[in-house]
Amino acid sequence: MFVLVNLKTYPCDPLEVAEAVRDVDDETDARIAVAPQATHLERVAETGAETWAQHVDPIDYGSNTGHTLAETVADAGADGTLLNHSEQRLKLADIDGAVQAAQRADLETIVCANNPAQIGAAAALGPDAVAVEPPELIGTGTPVSQADPDIVEDAVDAAANVDDDVDVLCGAGISTGDDVVAAGDLGAEGVLLASGVAKADDPRAALEDLVEPL
Amino acid sequence: MFVLVNLKTYPCDPLEVAEAVRDVDDETDARIAVAPQATHLERVAETGAETWAQHVDPIDYGSNTGHTLAETVADAGADGTLLNHSEQRLKLADIDGAVQAAQRADLETIVCANNPAQIGAAAALGPDAVAVEPPELIGTGTPVSQADPDIVEDAVDAAANVDDDVDVLCGAGISTGDDVVAAGDLGAEGVLLASGVAKADDPRAALEDLVEPL
Amino acid sequence: MFVLVNLKTYPCDPLEVAEAVRDVDDETDARIAVAPQATHLERVAETGAETWAQHVDPIDYGSNTGHTLAETVADAGADGTLLNHSEQRLKLADIDGAVQAAQRADLETIVCANNPAQIGAAAALGPDAVAVEPPELIGTGTPVSQADPDIVEDAVDAAANVDDDVDVLCGAGISTGDDVVAAGDLGAEGVLLASGVAKADDPRAALEDLVEPL
Amino acid sequence: MFVLVNLKTYPCDPLEVAEAVRDVDDETDARIAVAPQATHLERVAETGAETWAQHVDPIDYGSNTGHTLAETVADAGADGTLLNHSEQRLKLADIDGAVQAAQRADLETIVCANNPAQIGAAAALGPDAVAVEPPELIGTGTPVSQADPDIVEDAVDAAANVDDDVDVLCGAGISTGDDVVAAGDLGAEGVLLASGVAKADDPRAALEDLVEPL
Repeated sequence: MFVLVNLKTYPCDPLEVAEAVRDVDDETDARIAVAPQATHLERVAETGAETWAQHVDPIDYGSNTGHTLAETVADAGADGTLLNHSEQRLKLADIDGAVQAAQRADLETIVCANNPAQIGAAAALGPDAVAVEPPELIGTGTPVSQADPDIVEDAVDAAANVDDDVDVLCGAGISTGDDVVAAGDLGAEGVLLASGVAKADDPRAALEDLVEPL
Repeated sequence: MFVLVNLKTYPCDPLEVAEAVRDVDDETDARIAVAPQATHLERVAETGAETWAQHVDPIDYGSNTGHTLAETVADAGADGTLLNHSEQRLKLADIDGAVQAAQRADLETIVCANNPAQIGAAAALGPDAVAVEPPELIGTGTPVSQADPDIVEDAVDAAANVDDDVDVLCGAGISTGDDVVAAGDLGAEGVLLASGVAKADDPRAALEDLVEPL
Repeated sequence: MFVLVNLKTYPCDPLEVAEAVRDVDDETDARIAVAPQATHLERVAETGAETWAQHVDPIDYGSNTGHTLAETVADAGADGTLLNHSEQRLKLADIDGAVQAAQRADLETIVCANNPAQIGAAAALGPDAVAVEPPELIGTGTPVSQADPDIVEDAVDAAANVDDDVDVLCGAGISTGDDVVAAGDLGAEGVLLASGVAKADDPRAALEDLVEPL
Repeated sequence: MFVLVNLKTYPCDPLEVAEAVRDVDDETDARIAVAPQATHLERVAETGAETWAQHVDPIDYGSNTGHTLAETVADAGADGTLLNHSEQRLKLADIDGAVQAAQRADLETIVCANNPAQIGAAAALGPDAVAVEPPELIGTGTPVSQADPDIVEDAVDAAANVDDDVDVLCGAGISTGDDVVAAGDLGAEGVLLASGVAKADDPRAALEDLVEPL
């Protein structure tokens, strides 16, 4: 299982979380990575934790004031990038352009989407993975495996129908290790996490609890 | 073949074009429709021409000042709607929402996109049809069949890979009857036209020339 | 006082409301107008009611699929247009472009904004009027004169500081005739209304109640 | 005069430019600063050069994946931020929110805009400065003082009419030291530069040439 911890713009210490991510990744079979703010990418990557960007723009080098360039993110040490997160929804043409920009810079890509139909659409753009974020579960703490298990299985089917090589992650409704296991049982290859680790008093303990059942 | 004449915000007489569309549709085997501005929908539909909207928003009845509601468009007499036209690019989640809104109001849907990858994505959202608009051909007058025939065939393959029931239209690079025939030979079920008819001195003659080879 | 009834995309009969607007305008000293959806503009204007658009785009005649052209709106019989309504927020450069487009087509303009600072900004773009819509009052039914009278007075001051010729309307928190009077006492030259009239069982009676104290 | 060198997403070495900015600032009376990409902010600030962000979002700490938080930018060492650059146009309400976010984090603010009307609007939002970027001059190399001197003077008047405390910068059409002097003669308190320094073979020499006539 791949566990990606999204730090959003939380008031957490990105280096503390990154060190926990690095250490728990070393101690377990799970692959664990952290997605800090763009401004923190380089220092987070220097911890040795696998580091992801939260977003890159569908641009190349040039006149793009205030935008995030895939090459800059990669040079800072990032291995991949989220795209089209529910807090950063993009135009279809821009998701396509951003996937291409990320691939040009050798970044892995996870494209987020709301439901199985959009997951199929995202998979058609050729990312490495897609993440299904049912809007009704975002931020609720309700595990997707209890609230709406069909949506994960339907997302897995929708992606497979379009491109067998695209992994599916579960992007909402994950707070415990049992949720991670349940997501895997439904066909997900990984999960997106955020506040459960990033805002925990002890991020390392929170991560260890999450991956312990794996 | 389906021929959809998009009037954009051209300074043309929408009723004159609509009457030409209605008459040439009656005289030939081609299916021909016209897409006027939202403000002109009702009067255009009253001509008896098959009428399409240029866009509907991913909304329901309610507090949506300045937006276009699928039910209002349908009540005005529209049979379908374009979505995600290159001049009206939408977020992936909003294309999905707009396809659902259109289907709720019994409107047919054509989702436009730039290239075969995006065509696959658009097809995954379950519209009736998709239209490939290669950006390098938009507004050039260069026929797609000469400039880049692979893009139409690749779009047909991309849509079929996702959903066999979704038709593919050719949305740029069509100015003559030969271009329409060529698009059909490449697997397209129809074409989007704009200035060639809408800005013609004699829209009826322009349409007749276009469908004559069919 | 100017009373503008915004029909949004409510499931109301736009002609019934328009006829009430026309008749109550005739019977009273208030100036009353109605803002239907773009698709309804022409038929609403034919009732003889003063008709406004809910939005126009910062465009000219041309390749603007799915957009709303000021000239088309004016030709349909509209006398003015709302811009930057809280449900249709625009980029600063696009508000400027849309005010210019509206003026080119001889449409009056009301630019909406959230607070006194933004009201000053909107006034600097040279519209006929601005409307302050405090987000915390939108759709609450709480009268602005009770909840936050300072915001109206501050908006009047902010507009006057920039351009004395720009009227200020109160765009939220108006449900009764007393609210209209209170808004006038705070310096507003008019009010924006929506559901209170548009969704009333008897729109004419609702309007008569609203303007009765004037 | 304030000279802000915007590095956009150019393929330049941000540290080389930052060191030139720091040194030339020390050697001259001009105030010179550099605006790198968000990912480069911390390392650029560590050079001792005055460092600005290219953009911050109208957000607070929280769930804002992929966005730029003013506090993060300030903690990385930035002293200010550009807002609403012509390559990053924002909604009016979001410029207001971003100015407030920046002020909360003690960042100086420069709001860019196209023309005198929009400059007045930007000034009404209470930033430290505004920068006028006539679209017809962006990237042309034509000095604004030759092409359209009135636009700078009109921008100065428009800002002063709204708020005397808001400085006006000239944001396009500056390539030489004479252009900087001319902008100052027209009432500008500073200039925005980009490729002339960022893409120069020798950024230090380019900067020295620019500030030499001051």
